Amino acid sequence: MSLVDRLLSGDRRALARLATLVENADDVGEAALRRLYPQTGSAHIVGITGPPGAGKSTFINALVGVLRAGGRRVGVVAVDPSSPLSGGATLGDRIRMMERHADDGVFIRSMAARGHAGGLALATAGVVHLLDAAGFDMVLVETIGVGQDEFAVAGHCHTVVLLQVPGLGDGVQALKAGLLEMADILVVNKADRDGAAETVQTLRDMVSLGSWESAAWRAEVVATSAATGEGVDALLERIDAHRETLRETGAWVDRQRAMAAAEVSSRLHAELDRRFRGNDFEGAALRREIEEVADRRKPPAEAVANLLARLNAP
Amino acid sequence: MSLVDRLLSGDRRALARLATLVENADDVGEAALRRLYPQTGSAHIVGITGPPGAGKSTFINALVGVLRAGGRRVGVVAVDPSSPLSGGATLGDRIRMMERHADDGVFIRSMAARGHAGGLALATAGVVHLLDAAGFDMVLVETIGVGQDEFAVAGHCHTVVLLQVPGLGDGVQALKAGLLEMADILVVNKADRDGAAETVQTLRDMVSLGSWESAAWRAEVVATSAATGEGVDALLERIDAHRETLRETGAWVDRQRAMAAAEVSSRLHAELDRRFRGNDFEGAALRREIEEVADRRKPPAEAVANLLARLNAP
Repeated sequence: MSLVDRLLSGDRRALARLATLVENADDVGEAALRRLYPQTGSAHIVGITGPPGAGKSTFINALVGVLRAGGRRVGVVAVDPSSPLSGGATLGDRIRMMERHADDGVFIRSMAARGHAGGLALATAGVVHLLDAAGFDMVLVETIGVGQDEFAVAGHCHTVVLLQVPGLGDGVQALKAGLLEMADILVVNKADRDGAAETVQTLRDMVSLGSWESAAWRAEVVATSAATGEGVDALLERIDAHRETLRETGAWVDRQRAMAAAEVSSRLHAELDRRFRGNDFEGAALRREIEEVADRRKPPAEAVANLLARLNAP
Repeated sequence: MSLVDRLLSGDRRALARLATLVENADDVGEAALRRLYPQTGSAHIVGITGPPGAGKSTFINALVGVLRAGGRRVGVVAVDPSSPLSGGATLGDRIRMMERHADDGVFIRSMAARGHAGGLALATAGVVHLLDAAGFDMVLVETIGVGQDEFAVAGHCHTVVLLQVPGLGDGVQALKAGLLEMADILVVNKADRDGAAETVQTLRDMVSLGSWESAAWRAEVVATSAATGEGVDALLERIDAHRETLRETGAWVDRQRAMAAAEVSSRLHAELDRRFRGNDFEGAALRREIEEVADRRKPPAEAVANLLARLNAP
């Protein structure tokens, strides 16, 4: 039986093997993704983001517990960005999550940082597709919500959960422009700490000032204490409610389309980069545009306008 | 007189103003880049990369001193990646470099991290073009050499200088795969520290084991002490030698082409991302591909293959 068939029949080792192949951008992994793609689209993809120290891993552990108690199968893809400074802590968190390793209804994959532009986003999307095809009901994608990562998580998820901790007070800068607007649910984690109520209120005020794409859903603020499990049930209820709202309003289709667009765009970029770096232009048109830019006969923006016109020609 | 004409006539304030407009992706900046692009291509673009703590800013300060002593005009573009952890130190370094602010032959621009995918690379390329058009002989691009940045610096520079500090010993992992191969010149900075000779030797051994695209140039290892200025003359001599070798072997044209390709690719990616995020597909073809992927009628890889074929059609 092929790895793909084994994955579809619930074989965890085949899933783990394919995840590694996909992560390494191996041809076998690529071929598997092509075959499995029609089987995807059922899982609820939920991004969990927040700064280092927000307790993401403990939180995810608690959320997985609630999901499992309800009989749902859940996949976790933890994306480690390439910061060598936070590497140690995240690894420790990973190991803590491994306690669930024996449970067949949970699959955890920690993605190592890749050096390739677009590589990590693509590898993440690929592993999410595998989990989706393998029948996991929900896939949690954990990222550190700083820098360019936010867009990746928003681009690849139906629902974005942003974790914060009490004491936001003078740390409102932590909520950079765009980050708040991107979150569907805001969580004040470690809610047993001093200042939790104030932080909840601050976030609610910020939310009420924001502009939202849809009147049907405004970001909600939920307080949790992942360590004690308090509020995690309520949070899951909000995640489910967000999915329902997306489905009822038809916004689910828009999200699917945005996710497809993000993946196609990343993949096209990675593909172009690979060819450009290898000086392998394959066709005449791309080579001509690049040469004209290199020779200063055409500004980059004009070459890009020509390429976009080609992408859009009937 | 327009900002562009003022820049070409040597007006620093016009240059500073245009750099801000380019950094903000303002339409006026974009239009200026189009007009100025034919005037670019003369400057030697040198990437200076290395981990935090390698002393990049002090090193660049010393290098600028040597360049100015030789009567050369030099631009510095310092790229701050979005790490909030290193933000403070880099800002301090910036301020130290500002001592040169009074010198007309030096222009320093610190690029703030943008949230947009591809935005920082594009803004950096744009400001480099401005400095090139304004007649600066050399442009130094400073980046932190971790994560996906390496490719950006390699993609946008003729010559890549990688800084290391003594005591590499068990820190060889700092030289991640690809980073060494990308460097044209390796610098052991802070060479007055213990272990400098060993680190130089370790790097020379690593270089001799590496595979190099051209037999004409192998990465060289130079020891400097930026604080005392020791070795900085010799380093500049190697940077100049690299440029000469590129010119003599014709590799200069390949680098220009690779740089053009990197910029076109980043720009296309940013443009597609912007449209995809705004659900603004403009043309029928892109929209159709994305919809088919979203509806699971076509895997992403197939859509990308179709789009690439469009880019390459005669």
